[in-house]
Amino acid sequence: MSSENKPSQEEILEKLYAIRRSIDNIDAALVHMLAERFKFTQEVGALKASGGLPPSDPEREKEQIARLKELAIESHLDPEFAEKFLNFVIAEVIHHHEQHLN
Amino acid sequence: MSSENKPSQEEILEKLYAIRRSIDNIDAALVHMLAERFKFTQEVGALKASGGLPPSDPEREKEQIARLKELAIESHLDPEFAEKFLNFVIAEVIHHHEQHLN
Repeated sequence: MSSENKPSQEEILEKLYAIRRSIDNIDAALVHMLAERFKFTQEVGALKASGGLPPSDPEREKEQIARLKELAIESHLDPEFAEKFLNFVIAEVIHHHEQHLN
Repeated sequence: MSSENKPSQEEILEKLYAIRRSIDNIDAALVHMLAERFKFTQEVGALKASGGLPPSDPEREKEQIARLKELAIESHLDPEFAEKFLNFVIAEVIHHHEQHLN
């Protein structure tokens, strides 16, 4: 890397702030989609309760993890992270259901 | 709730499968957006390294958490979950940066 072509501190900060604005947009979208996802899982919880179905479905979870890992690979995301992410979200779903039961 | 209007098991399962398809769509969107987010944070890491800036910025993180909590409240998502979520994602970003440094 030639030091003559090195961007100035100002250019670096400008670029940094621009990327942060993109990250902020993505985070807003993530939060809104997570909110929508929890609305659906609450509906699932109520449906399962009304049908006398067990709250958790390990077979369904296995399929979800396998599918998300594939999607992660396609989009160059670490598949292990995709699995951790789904487990993180599912833990929150279980936490919601427990709160509703108590 | 009148037992006469109770939906049949078949109706419950049909509704359940329909909601699961929506959850699967949301999860695919979440994975793709997370992939995009990590592309940006990798760029941020490289920029900071080139400008001799410290990898973490606690002030920025505080602002991100405050903003996401507000967005969570607006979209009826638990603000504590939004904070946990951001911390979960930031932990992965740090993990990425450490991998690149080693």
